[in-house]
Amino acid sequence: MPDPWQRESTPMWPRRDLLDLLGIEHPIIQAPMANACTPELVAAVSNAGGLGSYGAAATPPAKLRETVRRIRELTDRPFLVNLFAPAVERHQSSPGRTAALAQVLAPWHAELDAGPVPEPVVTVGPFAEQLAVLLEERIPLFSFHFGPPPTEAIERMHAIGARVLASATTVREAQILAEAGVDAIIAQGAEAGGHRATFALPWQHGMIGNLALIPQIADAVTVPVIAAGGIMDGRGIAAALALGASGVQLGSAFLACPENNIPTPYRQALLAARDEQTLVTDLYSGRPARAIRNRYIEEMEQHRDALLPFPLQASMLRGLRAACARSGRDDFISMWAGQAAGLARARPAGELVAQLVRDYAAVTAALRGAP
Amino acid sequence: MPDPWQRESTPMWPRRDLLDLLGIEHPIIQAPMANACTPELVAAVSNAGGLGSYGAAATPPAKLRETVRRIRELTDRPFLVNLFAPAVERHQSSPGRTAALAQVLAPWHAELDAGPVPEPVVTVGPFAEQLAVLLEERIPLFSFHFGPPPTEAIERMHAIGARVLASATTVREAQILAEAGVDAIIAQGAEAGGHRATFALPWQHGMIGNLALIPQIADAVTVPVIAAGGIMDGRGIAAALALGASGVQLGSAFLACPENNIPTPYRQALLAARDEQTLVTDLYSGRPARAIRNRYIEEMEQHRDALLPFPLQASMLRGLRAACARSGRDDFISMWAGQAAGLARARPAGELVAQLVRDYAAVTAALRGAP
Repeated sequence: MPDPWQRESTPMWPRRDLLDLLGIEHPIIQAPMANACTPELVAAVSNAGGLGSYGAAATPPAKLRETVRRIRELTDRPFLVNLFAPAVERHQSSPGRTAALAQVLAPWHAELDAGPVPEPVVTVGPFAEQLAVLLEERIPLFSFHFGPPPTEAIERMHAIGARVLASATTVREAQILAEAGVDAIIAQGAEAGGHRATFALPWQHGMIGNLALIPQIADAVTVPVIAAGGIMDGRGIAAALALGASGVQLGSAFLACPENNIPTPYRQALLAARDEQTLVTDLYSGRPARAIRNRYIEEMEQHRDALLPFPLQASMLRGLRAACARSGRDDFISMWAGQAAGLARARPAGELVAQLVRDYAAVTAALRGAP
Repeated sequence: MPDPWQRESTPMWPRRDLLDLLGIEHPIIQAPMANACTPELVAAVSNAGGLGSYGAAATPPAKLRETVRRIRELTDRPFLVNLFAPAVERHQSSPGRTAALAQVLAPWHAELDAGPVPEPVVTVGPFAEQLAVLLEERIPLFSFHFGPPPTEAIERMHAIGARVLASATTVREAQILAEAGVDAIIAQGAEAGGHRATFALPWQHGMIGNLALIPQIADAVTVPVIAAGGIMDGRGIAAALALGASGVQLGSAFLACPENNIPTPYRQALLAARDEQTLVTDLYSGRPARAIRNRYIEEMEQHRDALLPFPLQASMLRGLRAACARSGRDDFISMWAGQAAGLARARPAGELVAQLVRDYAAVTAALRGAP
């Protein structure tokens, strides 16, 4: 049986710049989600004509090589790997600060029977080694969070024919990235779940809603713009492309897919999330990120003085996280989610991509008053 | 010469529910802007097929009657008058608090040669008398900010055949308004300029970007949804309708129109505004509102303890406001603006409506990959 939407899939998209740049069929990018995404998820999205992304910031170099090879076993289509800009690797604690946080966490460990409070470890990077592996493996597409990668790194990625994407939360940040040689801008609206990408100003100044952010960035740069934040279905995709984006990046929509690696209580909270339930907090990792409100966020606010810098804070919470996952509790898990996460529907990622394409076609047909 | 967009103007809109409810041709509402809009602006928008709105919260009853009659001289099309829900009329100061604020304002008065610091006055309402005038004048359309009007008031408006609109910032607020008998919901996204309409929860919980807010409200209520916040041009209108709205409400886009009554330095700051330049602050009026950052906001933050409750705070700033307008300064004017205000283009309001309709047609045609 012929698929009417499949036949017209290429001409239906209003802009070809991003499709040509990335070598994909549909301008739908699954957001890289460190610690949540799997090679199976990435491959399923790419095989469906979208772009699968692997969030590798927390993946050690040897494991990263193995992961890239696994993705290539599962798909021969383009895929993307995301790293954090190396600027965020400046992290320092001290025995005194570690002890102070351990004292705050100890009663919760006792309550959850979570064993001793773990020592802080560096869970991000090292950037130079991660980049070296990805260049050796000649991956086709990179993206960066928390600012642009160093110029020399961009040159090395371009030298192997790869394309480089990076996230901006304001027009000024988009201009900085474009001047740095980035090939496409991910415009991260205030709606987005997970870490704020803001790097050039205080994060509170970079909380621009996508309806305002996308057209202003599209007017300010000549490279393709990818909208991220609050996009869950064909309505959101049509809105983003109407605003001037060439493509979209969806996180929360793909988080609930069965290919993903998130604890059951997190998946349940995501599917039940209400619009007013998320907030931007630095209490989980040391950097601001949008998550579903829970008990930890409320209670840890009283102990803000004990917070360790990014990413050490998150590493000391791993005992509580594991205990929650074991016991089906969601009160100490960092449940990153966007402001429309409640629109998520749990279904295989390939089916989700096909559904998004069909819904986009239906929404844009209706916009012209078609019967 | 025939206007191709005019001919197809009615069938081009995807939903007729709001058009039929309000009796208008294009689902484009000029936001009511208390102290800024004029009868000339309202009539120009309505005459162009959109809906002009008069922000009357600060208009005394006798003046309000005169204003409504003036609007009717200028247009025979539907128009809307906006009031604040009477719940916000609970305002109290004391000689001690007034003196404390006067002490903070005195050095600025001296610097600007603004004369003595004025006494606080109640600049909003009285609601009961305002409503009585509007019912006697049998205006066709009402809207409310800061929550629903009392049930008895809704019944009296419906009894004269009028329609009632009200603003929501979350799904829950939209449901409360729909249950109260409101005929259409204005979904105010976090991008919006001016006062946050939030009434059912702390305002920080009601900062949902429109890309996330509109589809969730559209799924939750059966009455038409009007998107407000960050919409400046045909791109924004197409995005809002794609997300499930039946219409749009634009404030910043109409603020720069020559029919408007705003000081020149405010108009200049608006046209030059960058996306990262606005913030939500309660320092101007006592209630949170999005404005362009300026000197007053920065310096008054140090004197937060002296803030008077809404709307008394704004009334004590009227001397500084007048001095700024006289001398072309913008550092003590409350410059309400949305996050995309910089996309505003100063042009007559009727021309702006026609341009928005043409741009919507072009944007939606391109979304289907038309040449």
